[in-house]
Amino acid sequence: MLTSIYMIAITAEAMSGALTAGRRNMDLFGVAVIAFFTALGGGTVRDILLGNFPVTWTQHPRYIYMTITGGLVTIVIARFMRHLHQLFLVLDAIGLVAFTVIGCNVALKLGYDTVVVVMAGITTGIFGGIIRDILCNRTPQVLRHELYASVSLMVAFLYLTLLRQGVGENVTLLAAFSLGLLLRMAAIRWGLSLPVFSYSQTRWE
Amino acid sequence: MLTSIYMIAITAEAMSGALTAGRRNMDLFGVAVIAFFTALGGGTVRDILLGNFPVTWTQHPRYIYMTITGGLVTIVIARFMRHLHQLFLVLDAIGLVAFTVIGCNVALKLGYDTVVVVMAGITTGIFGGIIRDILCNRTPQVLRHELYASVSLMVAFLYLTLLRQGVGENVTLLAAFSLGLLLRMAAIRWGLSLPVFSYSQTRWE
Amino acid sequence: MLTSIYMIAITAEAMSGALTAGRRNMDLFGVAVIAFFTALGGGTVRDILLGNFPVTWTQHPRYIYMTITGGLVTIVIARFMRHLHQLFLVLDAIGLVAFTVIGCNVALKLGYDTVVVVMAGITTGIFGGIIRDILCNRTPQVLRHELYASVSLMVAFLYLTLLRQGVGENVTLLAAFSLGLLLRMAAIRWGLSLPVFSYSQTRWE
Repeated sequence: MLTSIYMIAITAEAMSGALTAGRRNMDLFGVAVIAFFTALGGGTVRDILLGNFPVTWTQHPRYIYMTITGGLVTIVIARFMRHLHQLFLVLDAIGLVAFTVIGCNVALKLGYDTVVVVMAGITTGIFGGIIRDILCNRTPQVLRHELYASVSLMVAFLYLTLLRQGVGENVTLLAAFSLGLLLRMAAIRWGLSLPVFSYSQTRWE
Repeated sequence: MLTSIYMIAITAEAMSGALTAGRRNMDLFGVAVIAFFTALGGGTVRDILLGNFPVTWTQHPRYIYMTITGGLVTIVIARFMRHLHQLFLVLDAIGLVAFTVIGCNVALKLGYDTVVVVMAGITTGIFGGIIRDILCNRTPQVLRHELYASVSLMVAFLYLTLLRQGVGENVTLLAAFSLGLLLRMAAIRWGLSLPVFSYSQTRWE
Repeated sequence: MLTSIYMIAITAEAMSGALTAGRRNMDLFGVAVIAFFTALGGGTVRDILLGNFPVTWTQHPRYIYMTITGGLVTIVIARFMRHLHQLFLVLDAIGLVAFTVIGCNVALKLGYDTVVVVMAGITTGIFGGIIRDILCNRTPQVLRHELYASVSLMVAFLYLTLLRQGVGENVTLLAAFSLGLLLRMAAIRWGLSLPVFSYSQTRWE
């Protein structure tokens, strides 16, 4: 089940990455690279930070094909995608939760400390978008914007807490997805966001 | 043979990196850092992604000295380098092919799937330039521009196909370099490039 | 002793990272991420390049808590921090030396070549700031500016030389900190810097 959700999620992320690449006038190759990293970059950073080699996607060629195909197909259907806006927001939220849960699981299996497990979940959830923004030379949106990374954080906490309480995996997953989707949709609907820290002192440090 | 070509290639890449650093008014240290990463960053990213530790250059100090020296020498001879423009384009193309072939070989030896082998080749070929551009705060040229990354892709395909057909290594290398140089020179001469994906919708995803 | 200095140093680096995040109007989450990477990013890059897994901070949760707390506290006290300017410059210099020495030690223990040991020291010293600047979408200051990275380089050389001469560890550390602090303070006081390489040729490579 989680695997099917994951496959849908990486394809959706790849397509969103391709649109960002299009805003930077990238060529076909650049679109494929950005699509790939937006979808699989979070898991890659997690695997490297945790020393979890071989990196997951190197053992699952179909993930590679799906993300690159997703990116290239986006070029063709970009003009119609505006109408799928709502669908994409939902798929992106599903992806965020799936990535977070999978990231936590990887770190749990490797026996890392709780705080590292939470960070592995968040890293999987948000680093694809951070790499996309770095490659497209813009300040990572996820660090400035709406409840997004925080949703990942709260999902990771809930997931670990329920697991530790001995709640069954299906119920735990259901709870994680419910919380994550509700929070994320509420954040979009009402523009919820964390307080912003603005500091305009001229350089002094 | 491939090692000699490789040494020339990393020096040429280091010099090109130094020029980009000069456009950002970096100091001697910054020039050395950028030169090093432009030349050896692709192989570094490849080794990390493939879990191939220790990273290659840590075992070959002379690669480190050559790239840093190449970068610093560039500062002195920069004013004359305009006249060497053509030579550099050729050295850069030779480097692209050498990096690609070496990257494929590393992944082959580690037993990775074909698509990962191809990606290892391309990563070695283009990620030095991507890191250079990230450190210089500009959108990676290689994702937007001319046939460059695609040349690496085609070289990797040809190289693997010939190897699988049992063609001898010398012939295979000769074919890879011929194809790569021809394609790259043709791309420069006639401004060949992949189609560009331009997407100007305001942010919606 | 070095551990206490290290804890103070990562907190100071985290706070300086938070201020940079504030200049980019990041939200609480972004501030925490930037603070974390500014303080611990250098050691992370070093560990990954050296294949030194598990990455150090994953085994020391308190480092994670300290940097994130340091970042978030900065938001509250930012308005008063201008008056602590001098103190911060000293803490930052102490951190630079501590990071450099610790980085050298990690590579020494793993048996790397001298030049790699020096690079491990410098990487630990300066890569936190480089990652901070990449995440904040600006050209890394450390590659352009004042004697900073060069201080790290000279400290690494002195440290290794004294160790090889059989000088005791305490004296070696004292010498490294004295040299580093003096050089850094002199660089700030008199605006010392390395020569800058400016190259304005239009793109040709």
